[in-house]
Amino acid sequence: MEKMKRAERMVAITQVLMLKPNVLTPLALFAEQFRTAKSTISEDLMAVKGSLQLSGHGHLETIPGAAGGVRYIPEISKGEATAVLNSLAERLNDKERILAGGFIYMTDLLFNPSILRPLGLIFAGAFRQKKPDVVVTIETKGIPLALVTAEALGVPMVVIRSGNKVTEGSSVSINYVSGSSRRIQTMSLSRRALEARQRVLIIDDFMKAGGTALGIKSLMEEFQADVVGIGILVEAQITSEPKLVEGYLSLLQLKELNPDSGKTTVVPVFL
Amino acid sequence: MEKMKRAERMVAITQVLMLKPNVLTPLALFAEQFRTAKSTISEDLMAVKGSLQLSGHGHLETIPGAAGGVRYIPEISKGEATAVLNSLAERLNDKERILAGGFIYMTDLLFNPSILRPLGLIFAGAFRQKKPDVVVTIETKGIPLALVTAEALGVPMVVIRSGNKVTEGSSVSINYVSGSSRRIQTMSLSRRALEARQRVLIIDDFMKAGGTALGIKSLMEEFQADVVGIGILVEAQITSEPKLVEGYLSLLQLKELNPDSGKTTVVPVFL
Repeated sequence: MEKMKRAERMVAITQVLMLKPNVLTPLALFAEQFRTAKSTISEDLMAVKGSLQLSGHGHLETIPGAAGGVRYIPEISKGEATAVLNSLAERLNDKERILAGGFIYMTDLLFNPSILRPLGLIFAGAFRQKKPDVVVTIETKGIPLALVTAEALGVPMVVIRSGNKVTEGSSVSINYVSGSSRRIQTMSLSRRALEARQRVLIIDDFMKAGGTALGIKSLMEEFQADVVGIGILVEAQITSEPKLVEGYLSLLQLKELNPDSGKTTVVPVFL
Repeated sequence: MEKMKRAERMVAITQVLMLKPNVLTPLALFAEQFRTAKSTISEDLMAVKGSLQLSGHGHLETIPGAAGGVRYIPEISKGEATAVLNSLAERLNDKERILAGGFIYMTDLLFNPSILRPLGLIFAGAFRQKKPDVVVTIETKGIPLALVTAEALGVPMVVIRSGNKVTEGSSVSINYVSGSSRRIQTMSLSRRALEARQRVLIIDDFMKAGGTALGIKSLMEEFQADVVGIGILVEAQITSEPKLVEGYLSLLQLKELNPDSGKTTVVPVFL
């Protein structure tokens, strides 16, 4: 690669760091790639840092010392988070989305990368200081949401299987009572999936009574995991019954769902 | 936002464009945000474009005219793709990964965002010219792979459910014969999930005989969809039996899996 001017290097550095969010890159690597002195890279990074500071979309973190380097921490500004949740609530309130059984059709939104990405950043921002080692969810619809959250935090994801489907060596299964249907169900996780004493962030798309979340917590105890947070995209708040779990964060609340009148009321709660 | 210098604007523009890959941003929006003339933004963009050109990680595409603008197309260089697939093959060849039934434990890799991201870029690069409208997969383990591919292409993802689990209004189900187990199984998709005549890219994590891929193709016919490609991460090539589908692209081939000797041979094929 031929030698670049400062502005060009700054753009290239921004690109490389954004491609690997949360990953520490040593300054020496940039110095080698751009054939320039580490002190020059250091100045470039200061300028990039300053330029990103105002955007609210993410910032650079520099770690000094021999094992140090620089990494890009992705973020979402409060203003953008508010706009995203307001717009999502509005879309969910469309009466065409009402399904039998008191549910809302959300699948198209939950599987759309451009909608998921900011939601992952919101969850990551809310739970980053809890330092989770892994994001845990249960199949199926919460998987994309858990994945974008894991990526924004720079940690892997683990997916609990419904039933006894695990074909991956020995596994741990627990029975749990789905709070809304009152039916006994099973969830399983391969022993390989989690090391002992990991810090776990639970992410799911929907919570009604909280039975599934409680089940996941019980399963995590079997792995001696430390549940450091629970993030839920939409929490049903239609009855005043208390949830089976406490201390979760929901981004949206479903306050009303009337199939007869076609009226749904979803409101953002994390603002 | 106070007025920035060129280098600072270039970094900020790079960040904004990379945060929304494949999305067209009008120049006027940047001009307003950075309080400068459109002609200045135009020059900034030329410089950013030049700087990104050499990296192989993605480039800018500018569309002229009133409805025009600029977008970031994420890419992976051939060299990096090769390195990623070689490293993945090596990890899969670890004998600790052998599972009963002729499978390899891949879940930790399939659920790790930093491993998934480049794989999505490889699939996107291979199929971008086919202009898919949507990426389709079947639950569960292929979902993250399909999602990162969809994001790299800038399209939504659709997930087919195993069995008859769809609770989302009317759905279409088909029976199919899983090629390896010879058992009749069911897959279903909500009618809401796909519009008619969409161009579909099928992505899955593993193919043995190809029965699942054939099933997905049949289901797509029910939606009058046009299957423009099939991308598979690992294809088992242990027997010489022909697959039930043709014209797919696999990134890795499993050539040998011997639980007795603990020998697995996975090789990259897309180089």
